Amino acid sequence: MDALSPSGEALSPHTVVAAAQAGLAAIRARRPRIHCITNSVAQAYTANALLAIGAIPSMTTSPDEIAAFAGSADGLLVNLGTLEPELRAVIATAIDAAAGAGRPWLLDPVFVDRSPPRAAFAREIAARRPTVIRANAAEIGALAPGEGPAALAARLGTVVAVTGEADRVTDGAKGFAIANGHPLMARVTAMGCAGAAITTAFLSVGAPPMVATAAALAVLGLAGEVAARTASGPGSFAIAYLDALDALTPDALADGARIKVLTPGDAS
Amino acid sequence: MDALSPSGEALSPHTVVAAAQAGLAAIRARRPRIHCITNSVAQAYTANALLAIGAIPSMTTSPDEIAAFAGSADGLLVNLGTLEPELRAVIATAIDAAAGAGRPWLLDPVFVDRSPPRAAFAREIAARRPTVIRANAAEIGALAPGEGPAALAARLGTVVAVTGEADRVTDGAKGFAIANGHPLMARVTAMGCAGAAITTAFLSVGAPPMVATAAALAVLGLAGEVAARTASGPGSFAIAYLDALDALTPDALADGARIKVLTPGDAS
Amino acid sequence: MDALSPSGEALSPHTVVAAAQAGLAAIRARRPRIHCITNSVAQAYTANALLAIGAIPSMTTSPDEIAAFAGSADGLLVNLGTLEPELRAVIATAIDAAAGAGRPWLLDPVFVDRSPPRAAFAREIAARRPTVIRANAAEIGALAPGEGPAALAARLGTVVAVTGEADRVTDGAKGFAIANGHPLMARVTAMGCAGAAITTAFLSVGAPPMVATAAALAVLGLAGEVAARTASGPGSFAIAYLDALDALTPDALADGARIKVLTPGDAS
Repeated sequence: MDALSPSGEALSPHTVVAAAQAGLAAIRARRPRIHCITNSVAQAYTANALLAIGAIPSMTTSPDEIAAFAGSADGLLVNLGTLEPELRAVIATAIDAAAGAGRPWLLDPVFVDRSPPRAAFAREIAARRPTVIRANAAEIGALAPGEGPAALAARLGTVVAVTGEADRVTDGAKGFAIANGHPLMARVTAMGCAGAAITTAFLSVGAPPMVATAAALAVLGLAGEVAARTASGPGSFAIAYLDALDALTPDALADGARIKVLTPGDAS
Repeated sequence: MDALSPSGEALSPHTVVAAAQAGLAAIRARRPRIHCITNSVAQAYTANALLAIGAIPSMTTSPDEIAAFAGSADGLLVNLGTLEPELRAVIATAIDAAAGAGRPWLLDPVFVDRSPPRAAFAREIAARRPTVIRANAAEIGALAPGEGPAALAARLGTVVAVTGEADRVTDGAKGFAIANGHPLMARVTAMGCAGAAITTAFLSVGAPPMVATAAALAVLGLAGEVAARTASGPGSFAIAYLDALDALTPDALADGARIKVLTPGDAS
Repeated sequence: MDALSPSGEALSPHTVVAAAQAGLAAIRARRPRIHCITNSVAQAYTANALLAIGAIPSMTTSPDEIAAFAGSADGLLVNLGTLEPELRAVIATAIDAAAGAGRPWLLDPVFVDRSPPRAAFAREIAARRPTVIRANAAEIGALAPGEGPAALAARLGTVVAVTGEADRVTDGAKGFAIANGHPLMARVTAMGCAGAAITTAFLSVGAPPMVATAAALAVLGLAGEVAARTASGPGSFAIAYLDALDALTPDALADGARIKVLTPGDAS
């Protein structure tokens, strides 16, 4: 895994903007299928967000079908939004299938800070080395107590994205901060789950994981800013957000993305 | 099952328009309850679409309750959007109850083209002779390999609706093509599942199945065209579609339905 | 449980308006977490309604997690929108945890009038003395045949809210009628479930249960009236309703709440 841009140039905000533009175009052209193991609260909005960005969702968690669906998808999202016992085996099978097929997969350890058994299970899953782990600071704290995102990323050889007022992405050595977003994003259920699914779509179309993740976070945050301009509240915001994902242009990304390169000290 | 209109006149586009107008009025007046066995991704939008057209949804899949709910409903939707093992017995019980009560039921074999075990189960269900099978071309191909919709309909004595850019409905001998619709319909999750539920509502109010199915497809496609006029993207389209189902008038159907009668050669 | 307002004054419509204003401010300031055991049809809209009013939803039904989530929440909603066998034990555990922690909990016995096994289970749950039982008249009839809401409330020492064209709340002796609302509220799935969750949020911030319940019903009905002013149909209404919950002001409550005090004869 290499933190340089595909052309080998040094990391810069422009690297991320270019990856966001290229990733958006590639998703719209190739329509990757992202298989999502996610909780029932988040399923419909996640599916609509994937469709809005140009990807195709699939969502079965049937034990008879999971290997076929996850193994033939272009990327896999593992969201731990609930911990139904029958899901544990399904998740393991799905990861085997996706990893075996060389596909990227993302772990979203939702609410592990509120549930010790869920945190324990999330640590087992993280040990499988997801392409990306995406979580808020409290969840990272429960997943890797005392360790911090950069050390977690370095230990596992994965990319860690910590969402918050500014999002941060790191591979353990280098990183980006993305300042896009809007407070209404915290007032809509499944907004983070949908963002994780869209990040998986960006991972599936080829940029290196750290750059692809930063690109996805810029796209998500910018769509939130666009949606907030026309929304009258959290209900209309959730709908306008889907429209904004669909309408986002390369120029809007160039103008609106707010990205900083993090030095090793910042990224920890 | 008879492909003529209720009054015995020969099939014509007008037959379908009249059935759409009468069906819409009957659904709004009688408020049929449609029991839906469907996946969790599709449940809320399907319920809202049924409410928007004037019907009442029910959705339990509890083994203790399914016979009572399905047997007392006015129609049953069986959507195979997932294949959780515990659903197989529930589906069989629901079909027994609905068929035993003389109610119409519709099979929507979602994604059978991507899952061999789901296709095998769908073939078992199809052998129970649903009133209508509704699927896209790839799903029909997996359900009845090499057979084609007209032969499938004739063999089972059922109506087969193949959705696509133009929808086609056949009873094996005759049929209709319905050219209504809009590309945004493919950008919203559960749009097809909701359409299948509304088709079941049209089946429940009395027109012969082939005509009722064609009528429902005209209503669904026309609502999509209306919604697209005010939508700003897939998010607002999904919402405007529910408003359009609620607002559709007999005149809009007469003006907007685009229906062709298929000859036996066309229908295969 | 005392039907007087917190300051000991006699019940009046103003008691409820003041509780609605204070409750709304408290929810927005304290952000209570409401744990919801509810059916998959209702989950996303219920979560979005809680977020719109200012509360935080959680929704797991995992047996490994339910005690921790329900016991640490500020209130618990038990919605019987389906009766999956594995939910019965989860519900019992959740009630033990919430009641043990001294938290309010609300029972919403959805569709018990259509399912005898569900009604039997709801009677067991009601015997645990929920803080509030919220249902329509048919559901109350199935839950407590021949008894009526006031007698049910008196027998259990609970508050019973009967929703309908006008909502009624009683503790068995006294009560309120709330005339706010709009017919479009019956055309959106999960509107009642979301209302029950918001009622639980009002219970969690401190007013006596009968007053808090009446306050919540006034808020819900008034938001429906506000939403209907801009909606074009049931789809846009559901979205505008979330915006209205977010935007509701103390002045709008003072101007718009339509509350009557019921005498013992009215309340039965």
